[in-house]
Amino acid sequence: MARGKKLYEGKAKVLYEGPEPGTIVQYFKDDATAFNAEKKDVIDGKGVLNNRLSEFFMLGLDQIGVPTHFLKRLNMREQLVRRCEIVPLEIIVRNFAAGSMAKRLGMEEGTKLPRPIIEYSYKDDALGDPLVPEEYIAAFGWASQHDMDDIYSIAMRVNDYLSGVMYGVGIKLIDFKIEVGRVFEGDFQRLVVADEISPDSCRLWDIETGKKLDKDVFRQDLGNLTDAYTEVAHRLGVLPKNPTPVTKPTLIN
Amino acid sequence: MARGKKLYEGKAKVLYEGPEPGTIVQYFKDDATAFNAEKKDVIDGKGVLNNRLSEFFMLGLDQIGVPTHFLKRLNMREQLVRRCEIVPLEIIVRNFAAGSMAKRLGMEEGTKLPRPIIEYSYKDDALGDPLVPEEYIAAFGWASQHDMDDIYSIAMRVNDYLSGVMYGVGIKLIDFKIEVGRVFEGDFQRLVVADEISPDSCRLWDIETGKKLDKDVFRQDLGNLTDAYTEVAHRLGVLPKNPTPVTKPTLIN
Ligand SMILES: Nc1ncnc2c1ncn2[C@@H]1O[C@H](COP(=O)(O)OP(=O)(O)O)[C@@H](O)[C@H]1O
Ligand SMILES: Nc1ncnc2c1ncn2[C@@H]1O[C@H](COP(=O)(O)OP(=O)(O)O)[C@@H](O)[C@H]1O
Ligand SMILES: [Mg+2]
Ligand SMILES: [Mg+2]
Repeated sequence: MARGKKLYEGKAKVLYEGPEPGTIVQYFKDDATAFNAEKKDVIDGKGVLNNRLSEFFMLGLDQIGVPTHFLKRLNMREQLVRRCEIVPLEIIVRNFAAGSMAKRLGMEEGTKLPRPIIEYSYKDDALGDPLVPEEYIAAFGWASQHDMDDIYSIAMRVNDYLSGVMYGVGIKLIDFKIEVGRVFEGDFQRLVVADEISPDSCRLWDIETGKKLDKDVFRQDLGNLTDAYTEVAHRLGVLPKNPTPVTKPTLIN
Repeated sequence: MARGKKLYEGKAKVLYEGPEPGTIVQYFKDDATAFNAEKKDVIDGKGVLNNRLSEFFMLGLDQIGVPTHFLKRLNMREQLVRRCEIVPLEIIVRNFAAGSMAKRLGMEEGTKLPRPIIEYSYKDDALGDPLVPEEYIAAFGWASQHDMDDIYSIAMRVNDYLSGVMYGVGIKLIDFKIEVGRVFEGDFQRLVVADEISPDSCRLWDIETGKKLDKDVFRQDLGNLTDAYTEVAHRLGVLPKNPTPVTKPTLIN
């Protein structure tokens, strides 16, 4: 077991000190929360799926040159990541109206936006992660203007990439949320995609049927959340279609 | 009476067609509303005060070269303005935390902000004038990126100017809201400050005592609103210190 001291327990994950300085072990729990943790449940298998899916997306981003915190998956529920200084923002990119935007503007969910739209919430559970005007960010020192320029281009690249990944398996990327963190290399700092990318942090609709394959299934009681996430994982080839138990080879005759 | 057909009746004003094409008569009512019109009252004399104060601020802005819709005051409750195509935004500039910002970020009212902060609400009563990320504005075509650059610099100039006006009479400009509109001159369009600038649309605190001299007096039931606005008008010399009824000259001896 590579993990050390517990550093933080959040709503969906636990962070432990990693084996090397500057590393962290992210443990994915089965806990699901919504509406600022007013709604809670334990969803069997969710942590395992998100650990695999987040690994899959982070590795993909790394391959197109978008830096991430991901180092390696350790086991079913844990991955090793670079420890970073999280920018206290939820960076949200929307392609179609849904959730809080649809509500705020009285739009029908699923309305195509004229172009991808980015918005920011201030990460603070006590305040309910409030939407903040971009102007607040530099003014309160949450991120510099230079960071914001980087964040914008990282977020747009992630959007292009994830839209493509999903399109390839018949899924529409409605919106998603990322977090970014600062890693320090000598005197330099760099921003990397951190936290997780999973159906917990994206809205994913089946292109054909419009069926929701993301955390809205839990928020809106639309069915079994593990089934929805498993569907996504299967389509992406992240989980084997028919998981067969690993057994010793059988001697044939 | 210079006014023609009624064009619009809002919460605080009525618009009539003006005598010339491209003009409008703004009639200032005594109606006060707050919390998206959930709280309502009629405040004797408010319309008269706001008509005078808005005239005063618009004329001052014009003098420093910030274009406005104001043409001339017609009488106690009416002013003639250029008709414009209103950009559907409430443009809010904040110098100190108050109101929805203080609530959103859990800040104490009156906390000095590191620098002036601008934010935008989408003008739509049915939606409750929701705060919108700046990104929505160009995406939904409410204003172009070029308009937004102009709006930013107009708003900052208005802030500098009004801060100065208020400082000169012992008042702290906490925040304010403006609207801007487009006027067309041949093939050109220009943005001008429209609507009104008054204690209905600013937060004004006495520097010495912190006493509120703006619509929060109504929102928070802090006393007589007309007294507060009259205080502002008196300090600015907009109303005579001891209003004497206009009478025929008396024959002395
Ligand atoms: N690479 C990283 N370094 C440091 N902190 C991270 C990293 N990646 C994610 N985090 C933080 O770890 C926490 C993840 O746990 P989670 O259960 O999602 O927490 P929360 O309830 O705060 O959202 C988040 O607060 C996130 O900002
Ligand atoms: N110069 C102008 N030309 C056209 N419309 C204007 C002008 N100035 C202000 N308006 C609009 O007139 C209305 C003013 O009335 P008000 O009672 O404040 O309305 P509301 O309840 O919509 O805020 C506002 O909707 C404002 O946008
Ligand atoms: Mg989280
Ligand atoms: Mg108004």
